[in-house]
Amino acid sequence: MQEIKNFIETNQARFIEELFGLLRIPSISSAEKHKPDMLRTAEYWAELLLRVGVDKAAAMPTAGNPVVYGEKIIDPKLPTVLVYGHYDVMPVDPLELWSSPPFEPEIRDGRIYARGANDDKGQCFIHAKAFEYLNQSGTLNCNVKFMIEGEEEVGSPSLAAWCSENKEMLKADVILVSDTSMINKDTPAITCGLRGIAYLEVEVTGPNRDLHSGLFGGAVANPINVLAKMIASLQDENGRVTVKGFYDDVIELSEADRAELNKAPFDIDAYKKSLEINSLHGENGYTTLERTGVRPTLDVCGIWGGYTGEGSKTVLPSKAYAKISMRLVSNQDHEKIAKLFTEHFLSITPDCVKVKVTNLHGGQAYVSPTDSPAYRAAAKALETTFGKTPVPVYSGGSIPIIATFEKILGLKSLLIGFGLDSDAIHSPNENFQLTCLFKGIEAIARFYGNFANKQ
Amino acid sequence: MQEIKNFIETNQARFIEELFGLLRIPSISSAEKHKPDMLRTAEYWAELLLRVGVDKAAAMPTAGNPVVYGEKIIDPKLPTVLVYGHYDVMPVDPLELWSSPPFEPEIRDGRIYARGANDDKGQCFIHAKAFEYLNQSGTLNCNVKFMIEGEEEVGSPSLAAWCSENKEMLKADVILVSDTSMINKDTPAITCGLRGIAYLEVEVTGPNRDLHSGLFGGAVANPINVLAKMIASLQDENGRVTVKGFYDDVIELSEADRAELNKAPFDIDAYKKSLEINSLHGENGYTTLERTGVRPTLDVCGIWGGYTGEGSKTVLPSKAYAKISMRLVSNQDHEKIAKLFTEHFLSITPDCVKVKVTNLHGGQAYVSPTDSPAYRAAAKALETTFGKTPVPVYSGGSIPIIATFEKILGLKSLLIGFGLDSDAIHSPNENFQLTCLFKGIEAIARFYGNFANKQ
Repeated sequence: MQEIKNFIETNQARFIEELFGLLRIPSISSAEKHKPDMLRTAEYWAELLLRVGVDKAAAMPTAGNPVVYGEKIIDPKLPTVLVYGHYDVMPVDPLELWSSPPFEPEIRDGRIYARGANDDKGQCFIHAKAFEYLNQSGTLNCNVKFMIEGEEEVGSPSLAAWCSENKEMLKADVILVSDTSMINKDTPAITCGLRGIAYLEVEVTGPNRDLHSGLFGGAVANPINVLAKMIASLQDENGRVTVKGFYDDVIELSEADRAELNKAPFDIDAYKKSLEINSLHGENGYTTLERTGVRPTLDVCGIWGGYTGEGSKTVLPSKAYAKISMRLVSNQDHEKIAKLFTEHFLSITPDCVKVKVTNLHGGQAYVSPTDSPAYRAAAKALETTFGKTPVPVYSGGSIPIIATFEKILGLKSLLIGFGLDSDAIHSPNENFQLTCLFKGIEAIARFYGNFANKQ
Repeated sequence: MQEIKNFIETNQARFIEELFGLLRIPSISSAEKHKPDMLRTAEYWAELLLRVGVDKAAAMPTAGNPVVYGEKIIDPKLPTVLVYGHYDVMPVDPLELWSSPPFEPEIRDGRIYARGANDDKGQCFIHAKAFEYLNQSGTLNCNVKFMIEGEEEVGSPSLAAWCSENKEMLKADVILVSDTSMINKDTPAITCGLRGIAYLEVEVTGPNRDLHSGLFGGAVANPINVLAKMIASLQDENGRVTVKGFYDDVIELSEADRAELNKAPFDIDAYKKSLEINSLHGENGYTTLERTGVRPTLDVCGIWGGYTGEGSKTVLPSKAYAKISMRLVSNQDHEKIAKLFTEHFLSITPDCVKVKVTNLHGGQAYVSPTDSPAYRAAAKALETTFGKTPVPVYSGGSIPIIATFEKILGLKSLLIGFGLDSDAIHSPNENFQLTCLFKGIEAIARFYGNFANKQ
């Protein structure tokens, strides 16, 4: 496969020009004013797919931003890969922290700097170029479908319905996604686990109005103090969540699986140093990789109540609020957990306050097998490209749409990411290493070959 | 004393006109733009005092707003009463909830509606008019000094220094203050206790930046969860503050004193109903009147951290904050308590976070004896006026300047208030009952007579 290296080298300048065109469009999905940019980006993608050789491609309407769909069917009897990616990006605030404007991509020190350089314009672009190579060189030996949405950064609100309506068109053997990271630039990874999420808001009401904390303090329950006690009780002294039934559906990993998981390179001192913390804190009896990868947890994402301005206003507030997220693991159902949490929280409410619990959103956890043909094909492709066996990673994050794909389309996803932790996705100065981009193209092209041959 | 009733009736219209003039000036001390209004109000008061017959009166400069000082010395050998009040008022937000503009006083249903109608323009005006009567009728038999400040609502930052500089001028036998409330419009009260206060802010820092709650949640301590646990631990299951040494200086009331205190009219069902709460909550073993009157307590006045906007952003925040106030009782020193709190809070800080504690402000508790000549004179005056013995009240609130007066001037204060709970001070539609205003003038005039005769 020296040819692909030559291909990339020969076409490098054009690739970068094409990717820069994509990066120049400010496709921020969370801002209404960028609606026209979403359409422009979708059309840019459809044209890009046609140019690399798909049979047909179009920006297809949804209830929200269009989904770009393209396909090349060389033989219906051959295996089919469905590529998923997204063309929308995160907002760019705080703008003043960017060294160069977020939508004026530039290359510095071997990295492309721009919003979306990695997430997910850059990573998704890899797939178009791998396809271009295979198609142009006549070595494509499976069918390929592309599904690139424009609402990933706002929770993919329209994609599930669109998938349901287009189930037939989306038939495939596996979904291929590049929207995750490598261990480091020499060590590839395949993300095998994503946590689910249940996210709720609680409102604690004490007296019907803000009170003078002098006249009433000590006699009337303060909703902030009560909320603090309630939150404190949600985790025990072993760092375990106390919500009744919370762990009922959690499957404990075998000792062998735990050993495997803990093989992933992880430097605890560097980790603590980078966060400037003296010690880690989590569920007793589990390592950090286990705590974030295969154990569920509970975090307060936000809390507020009473006087939060400058200085010292005294008040015994009427209300206090918290936003609580629970990260879930395989086999835990987010709707069940939200229900258990609500019941538990109401059950621990003291008589002196009233509590309202609102379920804001949820998503299922996802686990991908490491013994599937697709995984083996990917592992081999990455090993060939990087000279190292990829590490199976259990990420603590959530990509709810991946579990939705399984539910609606009946397909497993393979998450092969080429990002690095230093890429600053969602932050100022997002960037993507050129070597990651080019090695990504190599690896993905190899994957198709391996996958089609192994089916 | 039928004469005073006649005097009030005859002059009612003029009194109201004079008070309205005072109420029309928007003397909001917390807003810089009202500086000129502060000066106008101070001058209005100085003129008012001269008109009612003091020998001299002036708006005297301080580091902040002027203090209006006036005096009538009829004989240096006679007892002297120092009247304290304030001419500044609270802000008026939310303006849309006012039924009539806050600085356009009007009378509806026997009440004067305006910001400051009660607190403290109306209540302070009572003293000017009682003085006017005594002076005009030739029955004044003690010396009177007036000290009316313009920064009470912002914590009296300039008054202590001004008092220190004018100690000689302020020599008196007792300080008389009308800035508190009656039990109800038929039952007078003398406030004998005010709680002190220690007010601190705590900042809990976890990781050095906001983290992805999926990628890090479960492994890195969340400062909100930690803060909730720390706050929860500050009170035990009996509602007692757990800060080490917190109760060391608290003097337990004798059974007799407790019985006396609990004689104050208090309807627990009406109290709960008005606050719309199912049950009260406080330190075990004490009644509500004891909990707010003679027991120290701890309340979180404000808490914030993480994402507090609409919807469901996931974040493991770097920092969480709380503002914590402790109401203190006689013999507890606010500086010592702030120190004990700081030491305790740092001592319970887990290794996984860092904590910063800032002492924002404090004030000493105050207790006034019920067996002094001044108390007896006041009790008799109130009994004659209202036909009921006044109730000694231990208020949960704090007026730090009262303890400061004792420290600097060596004088006890007598707090005889004519406000009602329904007067909505600090709130929209502040009002003051005309009967309270007129009976207040009667009662204060009688107090002077009783006090001078008893010395």
